[in-house]
Amino acid sequence: MANQNIPYKIYLSEDEMPQTWYNVRADMKNKPAPLLNPGTGAPMGFEDLRPVFCDELIRQELDDDTRDIPIPQEIRDFYKMYRPSPLVRAYCLEKKLQTPAKIYYKFEGNNTSGSHKLNSAIAQAYYAKQQGLKGVTTETGAGQWGTALSMACGYLGLDCKVYMVKVSYEQKPFRREVMRTYGASVTPSPSETTNVGRAILKEHPGTTGSLGCAISEAVEAATSTPGYRYVLGSVLNQVLLHQSVIGLETKTALDKYGVVPDIIIGCAGGGSNLGGLISPFMGEKLRGEKDYRIIAVEPASCPSFTRGRFAYDFCDTGHVCPLAKMYTLGSNFIPSPNHAGGLRYHGMSSILSQLYHDGYMEAVSVEQTKVFEAAEMFARVEGILPAPESSHAIRVAIDEAMKCKETGEEKTIVFGLTGTGYFDMVAYEKFHNGEMSDYIPTDAELESSFATLPQVPGQD
Amino acid sequence: MANQNIPYKIYLSEDEMPQTWYNVRADMKNKPAPLLNPGTGAPMGFEDLRPVFCDELIRQELDDDTRDIPIPQEIRDFYKMYRPSPLVRAYCLEKKLQTPAKIYYKFEGNNTSGSHKLNSAIAQAYYAKQQGLKGVTTETGAGQWGTALSMACGYLGLDCKVYMVKVSYEQKPFRREVMRTYGASVTPSPSETTNVGRAILKEHPGTTGSLGCAISEAVEAATSTPGYRYVLGSVLNQVLLHQSVIGLETKTALDKYGVVPDIIIGCAGGGSNLGGLISPFMGEKLRGEKDYRIIAVEPASCPSFTRGRFAYDFCDTGHVCPLAKMYTLGSNFIPSPNHAGGLRYHGMSSILSQLYHDGYMEAVSVEQTKVFEAAEMFARVEGILPAPESSHAIRVAIDEAMKCKETGEEKTIVFGLTGTGYFDMVAYEKFHNGEMSDYIPTDAELESSFATLPQVPGQD
Repeated sequence: MANQNIPYKIYLSEDEMPQTWYNVRADMKNKPAPLLNPGTGAPMGFEDLRPVFCDELIRQELDDDTRDIPIPQEIRDFYKMYRPSPLVRAYCLEKKLQTPAKIYYKFEGNNTSGSHKLNSAIAQAYYAKQQGLKGVTTETGAGQWGTALSMACGYLGLDCKVYMVKVSYEQKPFRREVMRTYGASVTPSPSETTNVGRAILKEHPGTTGSLGCAISEAVEAATSTPGYRYVLGSVLNQVLLHQSVIGLETKTALDKYGVVPDIIIGCAGGGSNLGGLISPFMGEKLRGEKDYRIIAVEPASCPSFTRGRFAYDFCDTGHVCPLAKMYTLGSNFIPSPNHAGGLRYHGMSSILSQLYHDGYMEAVSVEQTKVFEAAEMFARVEGILPAPESSHAIRVAIDEAMKCKETGEEKTIVFGLTGTGYFDMVAYEKFHNGEMSDYIPTDAELESSFATLPQVPGQD
Repeated sequence: MANQNIPYKIYLSEDEMPQTWYNVRADMKNKPAPLLNPGTGAPMGFEDLRPVFCDELIRQELDDDTRDIPIPQEIRDFYKMYRPSPLVRAYCLEKKLQTPAKIYYKFEGNNTSGSHKLNSAIAQAYYAKQQGLKGVTTETGAGQWGTALSMACGYLGLDCKVYMVKVSYEQKPFRREVMRTYGASVTPSPSETTNVGRAILKEHPGTTGSLGCAISEAVEAATSTPGYRYVLGSVLNQVLLHQSVIGLETKTALDKYGVVPDIIIGCAGGGSNLGGLISPFMGEKLRGEKDYRIIAVEPASCPSFTRGRFAYDFCDTGHVCPLAKMYTLGSNFIPSPNHAGGLRYHGMSSILSQLYHDGYMEAVSVEQTKVFEAAEMFARVEGILPAPESSHAIRVAIDEAMKCKETGEEKTIVFGLTGTGYFDMVAYEKFHNGEMSDYIPTDAELESSFATLPQVPGQD
């Protein structure tokens, strides 16, 4: 096995861990569009957002200029419990594929939340605690974000109320129990505890819920309970800022061994992992210092980048959140019930949407059976059982490595392995039993979903 | 937070990883007693064991003399995919307990099997492959060992047949699917596929199975199928040899920072983790070079060390395996149905049994509600959701640290955190809901179980 003195796993020392987050907006010529008030259509400023978010997080959300933002010591200490995460050289996968490509992956699954979500959860919980708040509310679908937030709140002694999409609440009782272990309260959504929940239940009595609906409930719970604020695990600028720790560690580790990637690949749902992973590389690209191919991978059943509109849209089903300009499938879009692979949000980070719109990155969509094929092969040769979400990136990394095999090019491929699939075995079981199918929404379906886009001045 | 330049996590470099396993038997004056033929009572030699085990593994099983046994390169390469495992300084736990004790734990859960079992699984699968065998059979209870073996076999392209205790097969379908992801076939035990399984089903039609019964089936399947051998995840000398990698890494990491432990704590079911963790420290103790307090922790509901007999006993329910001299509760002993915390095997490693008998280590038993209390506290402050098995060690580490708080002693405590509890949420749920109870077997129950000990020349 060719080695070149690069170990299987590159771990940074604590000294080498980042002390600042990197704010890619500082290097963007076209900044992401501002959030708009859903009632008036006016851009939302600091005061407008205060009922929903913590003060310091609003400052981070609105800050398009400061390039490096210090990571508070207490967050850095927490990071040390589970970071630096390993940058793994996929020697075994390379050997299996017989490819001349060199493949690396940044593995974020070695913590109890099972994903990268903890990187932002601790930051958001920390600032809430600093502001003297009692607690935070949030929504969770598959449960990775809810688990991460529960862990962060459990550590800091902060109340944590999680609205969990009802179908997940019922199908993933273990996720719920992990959250309870960390002291969180978990409510199936839609619920009778909020106005928006009651309204949705009245209109759709048998609904099993959706992420957009759970967001609406969590926001209402935060804004109607003194001492609480709402936190979100993806999409927002602040989240991409916190997740830059992934990319910064990756870059430090690669620099240490003199490795320069040709292609950087990440899965994209709301964009938190992809945005974090690529940020320092994108910064070099924006500043014209280096060039990289950057590829976002999304499910063919929820193709925001590849088939969505770049437009202002609601972030939630109940339309209580600010409007964001992003690639979107329409806030009523819900992936086909046979979709098991996560990444089911209808929109996409405004930062990534702008960068994609400006041609700084590519996007591809993949069908889920191909994703699970890649997942299973990866599990067997690399020993890590990947989350379905992460497996989208694996699929395209393998595809690119196979192209290298055809051309003989020794490209260096880096991808983000966001998490583990221990709580996704129902989907794996379907795949093993040959019961998994693919679904691609029709143009007509998307058109009907686009019809729900809001009327905003300047909207195409 | 006091730091003394010791990082939160000590990772060794690949160069610092052990190149040999350490065979503690080489330093034992009183060697562990030999395995006996259950029919004749005669000690079993190489030829006697060949129908059951791979040749090289038998050599390791019988080798009481060679101190350092080289780890083959291919196994070392596999180890590099998930090792070295971190030695963690439990700064957050120390702070929470307000103890002057310094607490470290060696965390073996950062791999898909979720435990240390993979260290021996890859070794056993490797030697089976080297011998040109088609496959291996084994049993699994909770599923950690079965998962580990599936991973190793999936990697090497070896057939893997797992007999899974029926109650676990039904209650832990996710574990089963993980094994299938790695290509293993999983059969609920007792099954109609073996003579011993059919006999047990006939006698106890509604049985949900036991580990001892699954062992019998796996051994029969191996010995009756050409090209197959049986492998076992604990108890055996060879397993403790492979698991010495845990202790060797721990010692190297501690030596690097000049840290000398006062107390070393491990949970004990069959003894694989404890035996591996303590081995190099025990070696120093046996050679009179150093002294350490070494503590085995077992469930009060399955107290082999603290209330068992040191005697020859059957290793399995069907009595098809060799007899081993060990601390045992009798081969018919089954922990109370309310026992959720793993570590349910009736016997104990012959090596550890001999060392305990000779006074080189202590043992304590703990009740499961106390174990889950420790687990939950640990999860919240250290961020890792521990397996119930591992939490036995956490419990006693906390107890010892609290003693230090009373006395003001700054003892250094090292414990083994064998794995994660993601597949044990049913037990956590019981604990959260206040539905978990404790059970300690009565003396009369143990006496009736001891009555099943075999008649062997020299047996007390």
